[in-house]
Amino acid sequence: MNRPLTQPTAPTPARPLAEDTPGPAGVPPEASAGLALIKPAVRSQTPYTLSSSPARRKLNQNECPYDLPAELKRSVVDEVMAAPWQRYPEFAPPKLLSRLAAHYGWVDDGVLVGNGSNELIQATLSVALAGGDVVVAPSPTFSLYRLLTNVLGGRYVAVPLGAGFEYDVDRLIETAVRERAKVVVLNSPNNPTGSALPPGAVERVLAETGALVLADEAYQDFGGPSAIPLLSRSSRLVVLRTFSKAMGMAGLRFGLALAHPAMAHELAKGKLPYNVNLVTLAAAGIALRHSALLAARTREIVNVRDRFVARLAGVPGITMYPSAANFVLIRCAALPAREVFRRLYDEYGILVRDVSGAAELEECLRISVGTEEDMDAVIEALDGIVAA
Amino acid sequence: MNRPLTQPTAPTPARPLAEDTPGPAGVPPEASAGLALIKPAVRSQTPYTLSSSPARRKLNQNECPYDLPAELKRSVVDEVMAAPWQRYPEFAPPKLLSRLAAHYGWVDDGVLVGNGSNELIQATLSVALAGGDVVVAPSPTFSLYRLLTNVLGGRYVAVPLGAGFEYDVDRLIETAVRERAKVVVLNSPNNPTGSALPPGAVERVLAETGALVLADEAYQDFGGPSAIPLLSRSSRLVVLRTFSKAMGMAGLRFGLALAHPAMAHELAKGKLPYNVNLVTLAAAGIALRHSALLAARTREIVNVRDRFVARLAGVPGITMYPSAANFVLIRCAALPAREVFRRLYDEYGILVRDVSGAAELEECLRISVGTEEDMDAVIEALDGIVAA
Repeated sequence: MNRPLTQPTAPTPARPLAEDTPGPAGVPPEASAGLALIKPAVRSQTPYTLSSSPARRKLNQNECPYDLPAELKRSVVDEVMAAPWQRYPEFAPPKLLSRLAAHYGWVDDGVLVGNGSNELIQATLSVALAGGDVVVAPSPTFSLYRLLTNVLGGRYVAVPLGAGFEYDVDRLIETAVRERAKVVVLNSPNNPTGSALPPGAVERVLAETGALVLADEAYQDFGGPSAIPLLSRSSRLVVLRTFSKAMGMAGLRFGLALAHPAMAHELAKGKLPYNVNLVTLAAAGIALRHSALLAARTREIVNVRDRFVARLAGVPGITMYPSAANFVLIRCAALPAREVFRRLYDEYGILVRDVSGAAELEECLRISVGTEEDMDAVIEALDGIVAA
Repeated sequence: MNRPLTQPTAPTPARPLAEDTPGPAGVPPEASAGLALIKPAVRSQTPYTLSSSPARRKLNQNECPYDLPAELKRSVVDEVMAAPWQRYPEFAPPKLLSRLAAHYGWVDDGVLVGNGSNELIQATLSVALAGGDVVVAPSPTFSLYRLLTNVLGGRYVAVPLGAGFEYDVDRLIETAVRERAKVVVLNSPNNPTGSALPPGAVERVLAETGALVLADEAYQDFGGPSAIPLLSRSSRLVVLRTFSKAMGMAGLRFGLALAHPAMAHELAKGKLPYNVNLVTLAAAGIALRHSALLAARTREIVNVRDRFVARLAGVPGITMYPSAANFVLIRCAALPAREVFRRLYDEYGILVRDVSGAAELEECLRISVGTEEDMDAVIEALDGIVAA
């Protein structure tokens, strides 16, 4: 019987569903039947959200202040216009993997690409965590680690950073050992504090615990040690890098994981097939070919940061924490952080990140490093607000 | 103490790590320490892979045979050139959500966008499944459901389709009830068989089980009923759609989930922030504005499919299954499928999908519907191979 089916048809009406009362306007009046099927740890979780208001000086997402040079964008777009959009992207483009391996000093088959490094955090946690498995991470840190651990049924154990937000490696190790951590997440430089791990820390965590160490180096281009040289010595290490910060491509979503090839093979099972689209693959390849240019911009941002930090030290009523990243965390003493945040935006058109609602970050704001002009404007604005 | 850190430094050498012997060429000689941390269900799993050889007629991934019209690609590229690539994409662009809601006949806050619908399969399963929770799905079907269920620690229960690969709704429901399924996945039309659910089937599954029903309608533009009208009657329903097939944008990765707004809010916790990049967001918006044009192409593909199926019925030594999708499953009787596959490629430059290695698909090949010329070439080739 080979009767081909043709056009879509609407389902025939059947009896009303048991537990849902259809609502008049199309949406059921209550969703208890569906919500009962969502895991409690998920339901109780606040989703990751950020509503960004438009701003003259956007310093709230640790983005690169410079767009990719127009000629690079043009090269990407030319390549993309010539490509068939209706075809799936290459599964794992060998040339790109090879270029990434050369750039970061690792082996081709130990590289995994993702839709931002976020996807590779998710992939790593999802192949390692069974229900109740422990993830140890510093606190405060990037909130996605906790969110994904909760969704995956893991248990998240936060280890406070020191009084100046410096890493407390002894305490991290003690906690990981005591809790028999399956995964230790180390974000260095750490978002939102800017703290870099001391040299040798990842090596110690690997040697003194049995955990998988997820070294998220999203900001490592801006400072602090890298764990990449340790990849040749431990198969329990996964290093994440992103093109969203120093490489200036947050809008395109590209990240990568570096690991032992056998581990990369397992991590791949936690990521989606065809996870990086053809535009991003093209852009990543072109960005790598111009990495010297991007590295020069990164050095400039580091210089701007250092000059900013030096001037910030002279602003009264503000405590500042050392940063190896492209952002600086400050604590407001003279006025509430919320008020400083609002006035920076309303009076000066400067949008920073108000992190003061998070535990351990009372009265704190995170300021991304923009252009020199941006940072001069921040200093002036803070002087005006705090001194007034 | 406000000493700014500057450039990256390499970690200082420490003692060798306990369980890994460093390899001479940079890679550890064995990876047992790392692999021991990966869940057994993941390790035993074969990853999703596909290596596509270049072909004159590429009929192996159910892609649209036509690229997006050049003027549409140009509009996308113009919009993208003007956008700042270093900025994160919009979190959930309200205009796009609203256009999607209008297009599919649902409410704005019940729409969730993803990096392909694959990400939304993953999101749905990850917020619902705790260790041991059961997912019921037809067999054979899209392999990603099983892979993701395994990674998430769920138990996957496959319910065979009928002898002609038709859906056995009674058996699906019986199994879901007996196994207390947390999730029932229904891919309609089903990949790789082309089978559409009978009208009213989703409604029955919702009414007769307590499960979350994940209706994956990746191919619904080409035929079969849609479950979308049921969204207003059950909060346990999630409908997935993709722009990779009828919309002709597989290279850009765009998919969406439709669900009760309260469910969409929970599903969002299982997807990544900034999961859809700025290019894909622009392309999705432009494709929707030209949906009439894309729908005309879809009707043409359905016509080509129907003519192909009619001619295929006359090819001896081949069994063909009814398809509501943009592909047709055949079973080879005269010659082994592997040989038919090889000769189609070697002698005729036609690449189809050899699915004959999968359980229940002995001697089967899946052929995507391309242009009329493509399908005429397939008929001629099969005639030549099977008749020879």
